[in-house]
Amino acid sequence: MCEAKEPKKTNKTKEPSHHGIGEEISGEYPNSTLKLMIERSSCRSFETTKIPHDLMQLILRSGVHAATGGNLQPYSIIQIEAQATRDILAEKCGQLFMAKAPTHLLFCIDWHRIERWTKLQQGPYSASDSFRHFWISFQDTIIAAQNICTSVDSLGLGSVYIGTVMEFVDEVRELVSLPAGVFPVVLLCLGYPKARPMPRKKLPPEVLVHQERYHELSDSELVAVFEKKYPGLKIEVTETRLEQMAKVCKAVHGEKFAEETLARIEEQGYINAAQRYFGLHYVADLMREDNEQFVGWTKDAGFNWFDSAGRSDPDQPD
Amino acid sequence: MCEAKEPKKTNKTKEPSHHGIGEEISGEYPNSTLKLMIERSSCRSFETTKIPHDLMQLILRSGVHAATGGNLQPYSIIQIEAQATRDILAEKCGQLFMAKAPTHLLFCIDWHRIERWTKLQQGPYSASDSFRHFWISFQDTIIAAQNICTSVDSLGLGSVYIGTVMEFVDEVRELVSLPAGVFPVVLLCLGYPKARPMPRKKLPPEVLVHQERYHELSDSELVAVFEKKYPGLKIEVTETRLEQMAKVCKAVHGEKFAEETLARIEEQGYINAAQRYFGLHYVADLMREDNEQFVGWTKDAGFNWFDSAGRSDPDQPD
Repeated sequence: MCEAKEPKKTNKTKEPSHHGIGEEISGEYPNSTLKLMIERSSCRSFETTKIPHDLMQLILRSGVHAATGGNLQPYSIIQIEAQATRDILAEKCGQLFMAKAPTHLLFCIDWHRIERWTKLQQGPYSASDSFRHFWISFQDTIIAAQNICTSVDSLGLGSVYIGTVMEFVDEVRELVSLPAGVFPVVLLCLGYPKARPMPRKKLPPEVLVHQERYHELSDSELVAVFEKKYPGLKIEVTETRLEQMAKVCKAVHGEKFAEETLARIEEQGYINAAQRYFGLHYVADLMREDNEQFVGWTKDAGFNWFDSAGRSDPDQPD
Repeated sequence: MCEAKEPKKTNKTKEPSHHGIGEEISGEYPNSTLKLMIERSSCRSFETTKIPHDLMQLILRSGVHAATGGNLQPYSIIQIEAQATRDILAEKCGQLFMAKAPTHLLFCIDWHRIERWTKLQQGPYSASDSFRHFWISFQDTIIAAQNICTSVDSLGLGSVYIGTVMEFVDEVRELVSLPAGVFPVVLLCLGYPKARPMPRKKLPPEVLVHQERYHELSDSELVAVFEKKYPGLKIEVTETRLEQMAKVCKAVHGEKFAEETLARIEEQGYINAAQRYFGLHYVADLMREDNEQFVGWTKDAGFNWFDSAGRSDPDQPD
């Protein structure tokens, strides 16, 4: 869906294309909706053509009519078409193609609207302090986003989720004037595709779906299913990559693990898919940092979801 | 989508049906996929007919081929068809119709599979300690779930999300043998509908979608859009309901607020929609409790998403 920032030096990492769904799909579907979803891929190259207003309204309607806990719809969507804002988002996210996508939709959890309504109607309100409400509103927001994603595909348009907006929540909130009680979740870029990539290989239901109880694959089965998904993904060894790998491994698992990893890479003669994912791409030392910042941003936006129990002074009206 | 447990005494609350999407929809859609999503409703009454295996495989495939951050697919789906397990889930969730739905799908964030793979491939791993990875894997899990939801609808089947599995995460994990690194997010019940309700009224894009920046409605506009969504939702005043309302309001906003709320109810002659939502249904005093328990369950499952910074002893291999 969306990718954490990749260190610049690894941008040149050459990956074989993961295109083609090959033998997995027979090409026969019970209807066009399933075909659409099974053959879907993210689009990162857009024409500048705008999406007509009436069509956009229908696309948005398909999102807001989705399932939502208690029929509350605790989310808002910021529709961004101004070039200046799209330029800023593209630059901040480090994904320049975004500037060309004519429409950006920023999906936000929104309890602000419901809190205002409840106060105007003289009702009690506590959702901003509740992990339960966080959990469900997060789901509701993505359910709406995914319906929009499917609508867009069904109309021959394309889209891509951008997760890196989460790396600068405070700036995003300011950029589109989000009040307290509104928290960004993900950005969706959409438009008419200039190029449409082939679907990427996926782990199939046989691996991801478990009958009745969680089923463990054996070690060799597990390695085999990932090898089938990322066939031949072998990253060339360079000094820079080895240095980074050693740094990440040492920071996360200690000196001995770092040595063992470098030894394994030497033995293999390349960097394998798992090492590339968490050593070069999602760098494991940085990924586990900043939890405090993320949780802090939720508090800055007026939410106490992860606090042990709501507001500190429940006997005072607020 | 899914509902927090409603106190038993309010089960008899009479709500006017929110059926009919009336004037909002013209009945003309550019394709069947949009029509499907705009006219969709949750199904809570199922035939006992099983979903054929081959069809189910295609439905699941439409989920696992959805967008996923970095093409990682950090989720698992537990497919539950055993009557005994469905009975337990129905009873624990307090929604007995669930026992009749032939298939339950429990959607779980799953970093266990990826951690095992990474260790077998001698790569660094830290995703279980990372808020970033939590945020994206939560999205990926729901994106897959919502594609399955749409597939199901497109085939004439029905589904409903059940959020109350989150109220007993520890028991759910044991029931379906989830290992450390796997965390339940939501349950989806599916099957052939016995009855299919009309779509419920929704706040339209004009309210939920903001152009370029967040736009505040005026107080009167805000009240009006909710009045249009929940027309005539007036709950009869009873002693029991007044007692509960007073208790909830006092616990959340103090004595004075409770008095003001009871005065407003007396003046109105009924309990309004906002008061019903957070005073009788999602009871605001209970909703903000138990955050510690929820966060505790994530830790029990091996996750340190909400901790300030990952594991305590990064220099020790683990």
